[in-house]
Amino acid sequence: MNEPFELDARLAGDTHFIGDLALSRVLLMDDARWPWLILVPRRAGLRELVDLEVDAQYVLLDEINRTARLLQHLHAPDKLNIAALGNVVAQLHVHVIARHHQDAAWPSPVWGRGERVAYAPNAARRAIGALAAHLGC
Amino acid sequence: MNEPFELDARLAGDTHFIGDLALSRVLLMDDARWPWLILVPRRAGLRELVDLEVDAQYVLLDEINRTARLLQHLHAPDKLNIAALGNVVAQLHVHVIARHHQDAAWPSPVWGRGERVAYAPNAARRAIGALAAHLGC
Repeated sequence: MNEPFELDARLAGDTHFIGDLALSRVLLMDDARWPWLILVPRRAGLRELVDLEVDAQYVLLDEINRTARLLQHLHAPDKLNIAALGNVVAQLHVHVIARHHQDAAWPSPVWGRGERVAYAPNAARRAIGALAAHLGC
Repeated sequence: MNEPFELDARLAGDTHFIGDLALSRVLLMDDARWPWLILVPRRAGLRELVDLEVDAQYVLLDEINRTARLLQHLHAPDKLNIAALGNVVAQLHVHVIARHHQDAAWPSPVWGRGERVAYAPNAARRAIGALAAHLGC
C-alpha cells in the first residue's frame, strides 16, 4: 500500500533526469546517437501499460504526445519510434525516439545496437536544459 | 480528401486478416515464433501516432488494451511489447506482442530476427478463429 515510486537502477544509470510531468518522470537516454526520451509513470509496481487504469493511460498518452511533438520540433525526425517493451527493465517505461534515415541503426530498432555513446558533459547540459524548458518541468 | 484507406502492401503480405475494430484493422503477423498482433488505424495517410486527433487516439488506446489483454488471456506472456515504430512500413501501425522468457529472441526485440516462420495452414485458421471470436470482429 502506498509503496513509494523508485526508479529502476538500470534506467537511472543509463539516463539523465529531465523532470517530472503530471504522471511520468522524463529521462534522456544517455546515448548521443539518437534523441531518445523515456517516460516512467511514477507509480510503484507497474509493469504493463494495461496495469494502468484508463484515466492514467490518458495522462500518459498526453505526455507521449508532448514529448513526441517536442522531439519533432527540436530534431525534425523522419520517423518517431514509440514503444513500451520492458524485456530488460520490467518497470513500465515508454521510449520516445527521434529517428533519421541517416542514423546509426536505421531502419532497425535502436535497442541493443552496439555500445551507448554518452553525451559530452556540455552537450548533456544543453540538451537537458532545452528539453526541460520546453516541457516546463 | 476522403482518400480511401488502403493497407500497406508489405503489411498485407506479412500478415493474416483478423477483423476490423471501430478504428483499427487487426492483423496477425504470420510468424509462429511469437503471438503478434498489429493494429492499423483505417485512415489514409497516417504515419505517426501524433497525427491522430486525441479522440481517435483514445479509441486506438482502447483497442491496444483489448488486444493486449487478449494476448495475456490466451498466451500468459512474461511481458507484453507494444510499439509504433514504422521504420520499414511508414503507415501507422501498432505492434502488440506476447513475449516469453524462452522465446526465439528474448530479451531482444523481435524485429529483424532471422526469417519469419509462417503458420501452418491449420494453425493459422485456429489462431485467426480464436482471435476473431474473442475480439468480436
